[in-house]
Amino acid sequence: MVVRKISIAAFAGSLRKKSFNRGLLRAVVALAPPDVEIRVVDIDDLPLFNADLESETNPLPPVKRLCDAIKGADALLIVTPEYNYSIPAVTKNALDWASRTDGVLDDKPTALMGASPGRFGTVRSQLHLRQAAIENNMHVLNDPELYVTQARTKFDENGDLTDDETKKRVVELLEALAAFARRLNQGPEQSVRP
Amino acid sequence: MVVRKISIAAFAGSLRKKSFNRGLLRAVVALAPPDVEIRVVDIDDLPLFNADLESETNPLPPVKRLCDAIKGADALLIVTPEYNYSIPAVTKNALDWASRTDGVLDDKPTALMGASPGRFGTVRSQLHLRQAAIENNMHVLNDPELYVTQARTKFDENGDLTDDETKKRVVELLEALAAFARRLNQGPEQSVRP
Repeated sequence: MVVRKISIAAFAGSLRKKSFNRGLLRAVVALAPPDVEIRVVDIDDLPLFNADLESETNPLPPVKRLCDAIKGADALLIVTPEYNYSIPAVTKNALDWASRTDGVLDDKPTALMGASPGRFGTVRSQLHLRQAAIENNMHVLNDPELYVTQARTKFDENGDLTDDETKKRVVELLEALAAFARRLNQGPEQSVRP
Repeated sequence: MVVRKISIAAFAGSLRKKSFNRGLLRAVVALAPPDVEIRVVDIDDLPLFNADLESETNPLPPVKRLCDAIKGADALLIVTPEYNYSIPAVTKNALDWASRTDGVLDDKPTALMGASPGRFGTVRSQLHLRQAAIENNMHVLNDPELYVTQARTKFDENGDLTDDETKKRVVELLEALAAFARRLNQGPEQSVRP
């Protein structure tokens, strides 16, 4: 039996080159299971959201790139830092832009993960993101969760993930997201097939 | 008795020219009581936060402008929209930048207000902002709260506030923030004076 690959659009909510979360996203790409294709979306040139810059017929290129990537993928992965007990502006900005184009986030199987130098591993940031996901009817995976704590001990000086336990959890999360996307994307008629 | 003016640095977390929240901030300026001076901070050219752009000795001009304005004021007012059940990236971005310079947000008397077209008037956005304020030891005024609901019925086509009840509440909030700042800023030795 040939299993169709699940495509996952993914971005990291940090612009810093040696960011732990950019490193975590590189690990996601490197560790993706054979039935999963990670499509990294570059959000570095996305401007701060401004409704005056919106255009249905002629969207800004970085906005179109983000929206097309999410729309064209089976699932979405958001890798987010935590700043000030909450979502970083960079992560929220991508979500704010994507939320303004119909059919981009709606009904999208989504997973979150994040790394922080502290003891909580972005748990507050992810919780706020879950709240933002409600309005957009995104289906956020509940299990497993991935909070990478004490990041300085798990990434090297280039921001590359070195911790084996975390790598294992990255794979588990990707497998769970792919399975979740398969169930949600098969539609009702197939789901009741004997 | 001469009462010293309380200075309040204030910004609105929206870049849209006819934004309700920019209009609310203009109303704040117009309605400020005689003992309150509102100093509006322009955050329009603040880039998205990127730690690689940080410099202690040579900060980016819009970052320096924001930090100097908050640092030099007795209190802070954040006027925020709500996007996707949470803080807009534009509001959080200003906070993320300001939080990176020591002594800017720490111990600052702060008030929040916001306007939205819906029924909840930015209550979820403000709640998330309160959480972000904890890490920075900002003292956020609890009473009164100001959630401007159904904004389309309370602002004109230019985004200017027209609703008298809301204007009254704006004044009440500014008076309460000024009183809160006076109490917090007088220091311990004066506070125990008979």
